Amino acid sequence: MFTHTKKLQHPAKPDRPDPLFAKKMQEILGGQYGEISVAMQYLFQGWNTRGNEKYKDLLMDTATEEIGHVEMIATMIARLLEDAPLAEQEKAADDPVIGSILGGMNPHHAIVSGLGAMPESSTGVPWSAGYIVASGNLLADFRANLNAESQGRLQVARLYEMTDDKGVKDMLSFLLARDTMHQNQWLAAIKELEEQEGPIVPSTFPKALEKQSFSHKLIHFSDGGESAEQNWLKETAPDGEPFEYEKEPKAHGEIAKLDPVPPYVHNTLPGRE
Amino acid sequence: MFTHTKKLQHPAKPDRPDPLFAKKMQEILGGQYGEISVAMQYLFQGWNTRGNEKYKDLLMDTATEEIGHVEMIATMIARLLEDAPLAEQEKAADDPVIGSILGGMNPHHAIVSGLGAMPESSTGVPWSAGYIVASGNLLADFRANLNAESQGRLQVARLYEMTDDKGVKDMLSFLLARDTMHQNQWLAAIKELEEQEGPIVPSTFPKALEKQSFSHKLIHFSDGGESAEQNWLKETAPDGEPFEYEKEPKAHGEIAKLDPVPPYVHNTLPGRE
Amino acid sequence: MFTHTKKLQHPAKPDRPDPLFAKKMQEILGGQYGEISVAMQYLFQGWNTRGNEKYKDLLMDTATEEIGHVEMIATMIARLLEDAPLAEQEKAADDPVIGSILGGMNPHHAIVSGLGAMPESSTGVPWSAGYIVASGNLLADFRANLNAESQGRLQVARLYEMTDDKGVKDMLSFLLARDTMHQNQWLAAIKELEEQEGPIVPSTFPKALEKQSFSHKLIHFSDGGESAEQNWLKETAPDGEPFEYEKEPKAHGEIAKLDPVPPYVHNTLPGRE
Amino acid sequence: MFTHTKKLQHPAKPDRPDPLFAKKMQEILGGQYGEISVAMQYLFQGWNTRGNEKYKDLLMDTATEEIGHVEMIATMIARLLEDAPLAEQEKAADDPVIGSILGGMNPHHAIVSGLGAMPESSTGVPWSAGYIVASGNLLADFRANLNAESQGRLQVARLYEMTDDKGVKDMLSFLLARDTMHQNQWLAAIKELEEQEGPIVPSTFPKALEKQSFSHKLIHFSDGGESAEQNWLKETAPDGEPFEYEKEPKAHGEIAKLDPVPPYVHNTLPGRE
Amino acid sequence: MFTHTKKLQHPAKPDRPDPLFAKKMQEILGGQYGEISVAMQYLFQGWNTRGNEKYKDLLMDTATEEIGHVEMIATMIARLLEDAPLAEQEKAADDPVIGSILGGMNPHHAIVSGLGAMPESSTGVPWSAGYIVASGNLLADFRANLNAESQGRLQVARLYEMTDDKGVKDMLSFLLARDTMHQNQWLAAIKELEEQEGPIVPSTFPKALEKQSFSHKLIHFSDGGESAEQNWLKETAPDGEPFEYEKEPKAHGEIAKLDPVPPYVHNTLPGRE
Amino acid sequence: MFTHTKKLQHPAKPDRPDPLFAKKMQEILGGQYGEISVAMQYLFQGWNTRGNEKYKDLLMDTATEEIGHVEMIATMIARLLEDAPLAEQEKAADDPVIGSILGGMNPHHAIVSGLGAMPESSTGVPWSAGYIVASGNLLADFRANLNAESQGRLQVARLYEMTDDKGVKDMLSFLLARDTMHQNQWLAAIKELEEQEGPIVPSTFPKALEKQSFSHKLIHFSDGGESAEQNWLKETAPDGEPFEYEKEPKAHGEIAKLDPVPPYVHNTLPGRE
Repeated sequence: MFTHTKKLQHPAKPDRPDPLFAKKMQEILGGQYGEISVAMQYLFQGWNTRGNEKYKDLLMDTATEEIGHVEMIATMIARLLEDAPLAEQEKAADDPVIGSILGGMNPHHAIVSGLGAMPESSTGVPWSAGYIVASGNLLADFRANLNAESQGRLQVARLYEMTDDKGVKDMLSFLLARDTMHQNQWLAAIKELEEQEGPIVPSTFPKALEKQSFSHKLIHFSDGGESAEQNWLKETAPDGEPFEYEKEPKAHGEIAKLDPVPPYVHNTLPGRE
Repeated sequence: MFTHTKKLQHPAKPDRPDPLFAKKMQEILGGQYGEISVAMQYLFQGWNTRGNEKYKDLLMDTATEEIGHVEMIATMIARLLEDAPLAEQEKAADDPVIGSILGGMNPHHAIVSGLGAMPESSTGVPWSAGYIVASGNLLADFRANLNAESQGRLQVARLYEMTDDKGVKDMLSFLLARDTMHQNQWLAAIKELEEQEGPIVPSTFPKALEKQSFSHKLIHFSDGGESAEQNWLKETAPDGEPFEYEKEPKAHGEIAKLDPVPPYVHNTLPGRE
Repeated sequence: MFTHTKKLQHPAKPDRPDPLFAKKMQEILGGQYGEISVAMQYLFQGWNTRGNEKYKDLLMDTATEEIGHVEMIATMIARLLEDAPLAEQEKAADDPVIGSILGGMNPHHAIVSGLGAMPESSTGVPWSAGYIVASGNLLADFRANLNAESQGRLQVARLYEMTDDKGVKDMLSFLLARDTMHQNQWLAAIKELEEQEGPIVPSTFPKALEKQSFSHKLIHFSDGGESAEQNWLKETAPDGEPFEYEKEPKAHGEIAKLDPVPPYVHNTLPGRE
Repeated sequence: MFTHTKKLQHPAKPDRPDPLFAKKMQEILGGQYGEISVAMQYLFQGWNTRGNEKYKDLLMDTATEEIGHVEMIATMIARLLEDAPLAEQEKAADDPVIGSILGGMNPHHAIVSGLGAMPESSTGVPWSAGYIVASGNLLADFRANLNAESQGRLQVARLYEMTDDKGVKDMLSFLLARDTMHQNQWLAAIKELEEQEGPIVPSTFPKALEKQSFSHKLIHFSDGGESAEQNWLKETAPDGEPFEYEKEPKAHGEIAKLDPVPPYVHNTLPGRE
Repeated sequence: MFTHTKKLQHPAKPDRPDPLFAKKMQEILGGQYGEISVAMQYLFQGWNTRGNEKYKDLLMDTATEEIGHVEMIATMIARLLEDAPLAEQEKAADDPVIGSILGGMNPHHAIVSGLGAMPESSTGVPWSAGYIVASGNLLADFRANLNAESQGRLQVARLYEMTDDKGVKDMLSFLLARDTMHQNQWLAAIKELEEQEGPIVPSTFPKALEKQSFSHKLIHFSDGGESAEQNWLKETAPDGEPFEYEKEPKAHGEIAKLDPVPPYVHNTLPGRE
Repeated sequence: MFTHTKKLQHPAKPDRPDPLFAKKMQEILGGQYGEISVAMQYLFQGWNTRGNEKYKDLLMDTATEEIGHVEMIATMIARLLEDAPLAEQEKAADDPVIGSILGGMNPHHAIVSGLGAMPESSTGVPWSAGYIVASGNLLADFRANLNAESQGRLQVARLYEMTDDKGVKDMLSFLLARDTMHQNQWLAAIKELEEQEGPIVPSTFPKALEKQSFSHKLIHFSDGGESAEQNWLKETAPDGEPFEYEKEPKAHGEIAKLDPVPPYVHNTLPGRE
């Protein structure tokens, strides 16, 4: 169960409205790696965790914080949208700055949300739960989380470079720090799990049942020879076996011919051409 | 540019048709972490790589192999669908086995693809490019790749447990091995990059510009005390600073009140209630 | 069965082309609450109505009119797109007005539809049937319809404020009037049904089977005390019982621990951390 | 900012596993009118509210509770999935009950989430933010909320009828009660706003600017005469004007002919046929 | 503008309910090539036609008929759903026939639509306007239409083979006939346009501006030699030039190396590996 | 199985960066008829082909080439994005040209992909496998392919007209030529199949089972008389029967009344109104 306090975790106040930046900032709210994604991903991972309470708590703590990050960004976007030149009388078609705002704003901000945040990306695509994962395997999922925090921090850093609004930069610098922490924590938790289970997910699948002659082979499917020069090829693979290199890919299967199916399926009959 | 050989990389021949398993196998073809996802993700990462040719080659080699994995699974699904009891005369309503096949098959296999594979998940949702990422930052992307190979291998392992068809198991054991290799290779490449750049993505963003007092703090947003018992909390964080623990979350921002916008936006006027 | 007359229900002629406004107008054609949504929603509600012929007729009448509204807006958009500066020779990069049109147009209008309307929203997202509902319960669905006409009229009003084209305003003022009528009619039909069934949907579910001690309680999940000041809290609830107020939310359930599942699911084994 | 307690708001414990019901229950978790939809809709409406603090609080309180409902249902689904007959050794193909479970389960529960809840509907479609709305106009949005609670309670009632599991029924009877309260509260708040603003959204758009001769006219677009028999047609419309009835729809516009566009658009040239 | 008659274009009455077939029949209602797709595709093509009134009429006539086909199928599905064994008391878990119905039904039919049709495919995916096209070029679009009617008739034929319900078969045999007509009409109209314009779309693009040495060359990107045996290779191509055959594909471009971008984009710096 | 060469099939080098054109070019990469669509469509058609090896080869050859076209366009887009004015210091708000670039760029190019190509359309919608088809019936599918190549070439031609960059035009003129070839080849293969099977898909469904009186009738669902003037109406239909014309559409079915369903479905009870 959750409770809410009306105060934000960190201030979310721009120095001045900027409807074009509001559009861009939607990416870290409702894009593939926005805050809705991490909030929902951690919630579902937490709720699906079976019998590892410390990790479940870590997930729920982080998830709960992330809902508050969605709140901060939504508030920031709503404020960036104030004073957008929407009404006809404000549109001086010969003012190029207003012109590029009118051409560049997310029309949803004007027409749908009444100058509020939208649960969508910077291109106006609604957030989709197809972005997230909660697999029941914590090592797999913490890798998903490390990726999400890496992509997320990268996007926040890029937005930081694209504005000179001190209020916006202040909030982004807080998000950058929390993303640093979250990368740190997932890295630490991954290390802990890898030390117990080994690096290959899922660790519980018996090695003997996989075709082990293919488990350490870098196969070269291209021309040129740069692939072979990976430095790590000379080292032991993370799971303890030596890497191998195969310069020419081999096709071990036969030509894939399919049998015909009954005529009532109304496929093309065999023998056409 | 690409070329094709008609032989499969590995045999894809089931012992007998099994339309219900064909439906399930769609997940590793066209689901969130199916082979289309990794093929497309590696292709776009490779094509977007700027000035790191060895990594670009690694990405293109792996991508090219994965297109061949899509091919193997598509072939397997087409063969699992042969002999599905589709026509009315084959439907003995009183045969419960046929009944559960008819009730459980993916209807697209019967109606849309004529007993062929579909570019969709095990629940019949079309593959979406919203699943993949190519960010231009290789450390971020290799983490995405490690996650994809971990989730993917987990799903293949689960499918392996759900069938006793030796032909299907043979192909899955090959895919398990390649997923092992791909986890190994991304782990090795990640280690290499982390040694050059440090563990926090993006490494090029100046630390001084983030709010560093929040970069190592685990904040407890829940009741109970289990979070605090994470063993790694006592260790140095991966980026070299000590972790901190904050038992009570603090709201550093103010209550988020928004200003009204002009009446021509037709929002609810302030003062209602 | 349907028939068509070539004349529009109302004129759809702008005074002059305006490709930027054409992009915005897509929202009321193919957005979440555009005319495709109401047309399709009323059609499916009408087709699914069982044994209430007067309401079925009302739905089919309104649905049929709405298909004609889609037609009017599609025609208007096609005309707003005429004279868009597409060809290279027309692009004077130093003309800022043309520049902002080129930057702000929906590229689908230029590349995909050949200056015609698209079945998509103002951000270029294809219309989705996930927007609509036809539940078989008319009171529930008429509330959906009242909402759709309210959101729809709000969006039309906002568009009206954003243009000074008299032809566009003329068509919008017709749509505003029809949305007024449709709000009026769903309000009237809702009142009629509520008088027969009571206000809680579905009315046919026995009250005794719900946990009635929670049916009138406003629970305060936040800090501060403003929630308690809702004026209506002092009144009888619409279903005839008194409202209650609970200042502190209570967790009536236990801590949600899940049991482990068999090892062949390859989840993280219990006891990790 | 949000905080979390580990206890559930209400118990979520089934008497026994039932993987088929777990699939159905996904609808009220991640379907169009599931708990994710109401949680997210209320959050965005609350965050976008400008200057009406009491309503903002009401929205945030209800939103925060709904996140806890997502939690309860996710927990219930995870428990309904325990003991699903996934592994090959458990599959006695000649046991029709197991057969129909295997054919009828959501394959994502077995392959993707490791017997946990998914953020998707009962047909396995990922939740989409395209389901929700936050318009900045509270009367419009409270109507959206009343609709969502009506559709939601209807779906919960239907699920209640489809099981005899006492634990499941217990949780559903709690959700039914909360949906009753939420219908009551939105009805009360709507009444309050309508008394201040009148029933037509948006109330702030000047009546004189819409084509008022069409604002109260029921137009008959079908054959037969049942439409005319709506009882409410004889009454005053909710906005205070008399209803009218038009038996034959009139086309007030001209035939919609479009002008040709320049040849470089490569549309079909005029004059073909 | 459209009008509606309450009678169906053709009877839509099954001999008996069949909820499993109702699920399958959703494909031709709301799937990629269902009746919603053709109705909407023809409507948008008609509305976007500029200056070719005879073709515009043909499109509007066919579109208007297709809306009536959606109506027929929706009605049929609603009737196939009657008597579905939904309530708990009807579920004899030991009756395998009921078991496979319960496992195999589309859960939306039970929970969302109250035993009515849904605007979605046979796998429960909402219809998307991303399925359709209206390009402004009639030859391109008539080819889209011919394809849609071919895929559509194929799907109807497959459904026809999967049932022995005479009422269902009667309606399907009507739809098959209309799909025959629509294939005939688009074939005839395509022939007419090709005779005026030639076979390559768009015909108005100057041949001299394309790299004509590649306009008739079949390039062999695979091993083996079967490709070369296409009979039509020896004939003149449809646009009047001879076909050519290239046994080995040539890469005419250089190796695709990209330049680095400024450091503030936070991509991986060049020189890593 | 596939292999890759590092050289492009054709050069992909613009004369100068142009971020706005990069956004537009996304349409032919990841839009409905972009190169991803044709590559994936041909792959799945090839993999699903049963017993017609020459056509399977043709499909695989063309598919393999198309993956290389995706590569060329992705490379071109990455180069068009170089030098985009992203960082704050480059943003001279008073420079209207930079202003319209900033307002008009796809924000994903700046924030998500780090100035690389995205697998999405020109409006930023992720590519969806819902765009493609592989039905098992080659005549149906070759018609889908002819349509895809027609829409695709039309879009490339429109892009060609919208730029004066010689490098971009050079690559587009190559794509135009390949689309000409692909139209030629599918036209030739269609002709071959039609000569063997006749023009109506599927050819294997017995004519006697369709309602033949409706198989050649153009039904006029509109007013006016232009439909009747189609020249081809006077000719024999492509399948060898005469066309007919029906001036007034007839409703052959009854009024579509549905029976009520049991009360536990909680639909509106019959008799309301």
